[in-house]
Amino acid sequence: MQKNKTVPTLEWKNNAVRMIDQTLLPEKLKVIVVGDPAEMWRAIKRLAVRGAPAIGCAAAYGVVLGANKSTAKTGAVLLKDINKTADYLATSRPTAVNLFWALERMKAVAVAEKGLPVVALKKRLLDEAHAILAEDTAMCRAIGDNGAKLVPKRKGVFGILTHCNAGGLATSAYGTALAVIYSAFAQKKNIRVFADETRPLCQGSRLTSWELMQAGVPVTLICDNMSAQVMREGKIDMIVVGADRIAANGDAANKIGTYGVAVLARHHGIPVYIAAPSSTFDLSLADGSQIPIEERDGDEIRRGFGKLTAPKDVAVYNPAFDVTPANLITGIITERGVISAPTKAKIARMLK
Amino acid sequence: MQKNKTVPTLEWKNNAVRMIDQTLLPEKLKVIVVGDPAEMWRAIKRLAVRGAPAIGCAAAYGVVLGANKSTAKTGAVLLKDINKTADYLATSRPTAVNLFWALERMKAVAVAEKGLPVVALKKRLLDEAHAILAEDTAMCRAIGDNGAKLVPKRKGVFGILTHCNAGGLATSAYGTALAVIYSAFAQKKNIRVFADETRPLCQGSRLTSWELMQAGVPVTLICDNMSAQVMREGKIDMIVVGADRIAANGDAANKIGTYGVAVLARHHGIPVYIAAPSSTFDLSLADGSQIPIEERDGDEIRRGFGKLTAPKDVAVYNPAFDVTPANLITGIITERGVISAPTKAKIARMLK
Repeated sequence: MQKNKTVPTLEWKNNAVRMIDQTLLPEKLKVIVVGDPAEMWRAIKRLAVRGAPAIGCAAAYGVVLGANKSTAKTGAVLLKDINKTADYLATSRPTAVNLFWALERMKAVAVAEKGLPVVALKKRLLDEAHAILAEDTAMCRAIGDNGAKLVPKRKGVFGILTHCNAGGLATSAYGTALAVIYSAFAQKKNIRVFADETRPLCQGSRLTSWELMQAGVPVTLICDNMSAQVMREGKIDMIVVGADRIAANGDAANKIGTYGVAVLARHHGIPVYIAAPSSTFDLSLADGSQIPIEERDGDEIRRGFGKLTAPKDVAVYNPAFDVTPANLITGIITERGVISAPTKAKIARMLK
Repeated sequence: MQKNKTVPTLEWKNNAVRMIDQTLLPEKLKVIVVGDPAEMWRAIKRLAVRGAPAIGCAAAYGVVLGANKSTAKTGAVLLKDINKTADYLATSRPTAVNLFWALERMKAVAVAEKGLPVVALKKRLLDEAHAILAEDTAMCRAIGDNGAKLVPKRKGVFGILTHCNAGGLATSAYGTALAVIYSAFAQKKNIRVFADETRPLCQGSRLTSWELMQAGVPVTLICDNMSAQVMREGKIDMIVVGADRIAANGDAANKIGTYGVAVLARHHGIPVYIAAPSSTFDLSLADGSQIPIEERDGDEIRRGFGKLTAPKDVAVYNPAFDVTPANLITGIITERGVISAPTKAKIARMLK
């Protein structure tokens, strides 16, 4: 089920974090060594590491790096340094929820254990970062196993379409949507993945198709505008995508284009699954209309491939996400189980 | 209404065809000179000239170039050379019916006039190519005027989404889908065009948004996977696209992604219009399942514009066209009028 047998998305080794520089994929698989909080801040900022769960893990280790650099002689002084590091790392990606969550968790451990000798407290922080990573891995694995049950074992190829990258590169390992695929593949199910390119940043072509190939999973890359045709040709039996935030009623925000895929899937009678840890639910939001949609720079579209592919001053609309309404979602795959035909009541029950 | 006041898409000058190299737009407006059939074959193949009607004009002139190179001393021998050239040019692109239509027309003239002295026959062929171009221009203008009647004059912005480039660059002038837009704009209707980028070759961003900006028409560029979101936001009142071939029942082949747009439009209650000259109909085909779909090289997707944006050996599916079934088409705008809710009988009646 491993996405990549040799190179993890990020790992702790020799008192530093080794992580894949995702901005260089797929042309170059380069592992960078991050040895202090400033380097970690830059790595998160420039998207060397991306995907909400992976950012959380990276930030937790960033706190450890800060603590280890500290020359504090007492727990109380060390605590001050830790808080400073955490607050600094929090400014790297101001919108990533898992970033704050992981940093708060590290700060809480430091507060609770500040009576320890500094060497022991530093060790305790490293253990906590390891725990965050291990929990993320276990959650992804559970999502994968729950989702794999939806993939039948059969002779004919079972086609799965995914959009963007909800894979091992976006988490500590396995991913969410791709965890379902890795798990089904490990169970020797006869699958083929169709990966949407996912303009403008091409996470589907650069990351998803790369990590699936590393794992030996059959994958075919298509442009976003080909998914309808591929569905019509009968090549797709299931849609699986991730989510960035899910409202109380099941409306799910994900990478721009997901909503269109869901509409097309409905037209072709293909089930649509969202795979996400239960921490993705935001029960404070009644429905998807309350999820703010980030609009990004137009040059991502005008100069998407480095080269200018549009008039340099053309007006551009570049929403980064869209919201798929719950009524187009067949089920939400979480680490706790699958919520079929999601409603507010079913979601509340699963999260209780 | 002119797409570009100074540089025509293609023209005959000094015994050669001068045409815009559309692969270099929008960064560079370069005119290439095509002097023999092999150069024309390559120009069509590599999409220096593209768009079904423009390919038809280019191919007709390609036959003239072949005839002019011929050293035949009699009409009968020249006819053989002409047929050879036409059959060769027919292999450049498989889907656009206008290519075959124009070549057949040139061959028919050669057959009818093979009794002429070779110099006169060559002149007659050139006149025929000129006629094809002039008819195309008049046809585009008529399509534009027929289609503009579907655009209301109103205070609020009327949003029109188009896909690929069915513009002045795809025809001798004005275009088909864009002719509707140019005509409505000339009538001072309050429109805004949303142009799909149209991966992999980005005709929407490179060509459509460029030529609309040249003409001063308000245009917003989006990625293909954003059209569903833009529709959902209520920004689109009408879809207008071109066609490469239309079967007897109204099923229409057009650039990959058109079918998906039509499904999304149906979901959002937005009318879908195909704008195409009546020469686009291929009544020998009962329905769209008989239209051959060109599959193009995977590197068009893997290496967008020079840079690798996917694993270099990833499997790719790259169909260049798809077929929108007649039941998703609100109307077909031709130079003869609009065929609403197209059926075999209505189409036959319009083409009689």
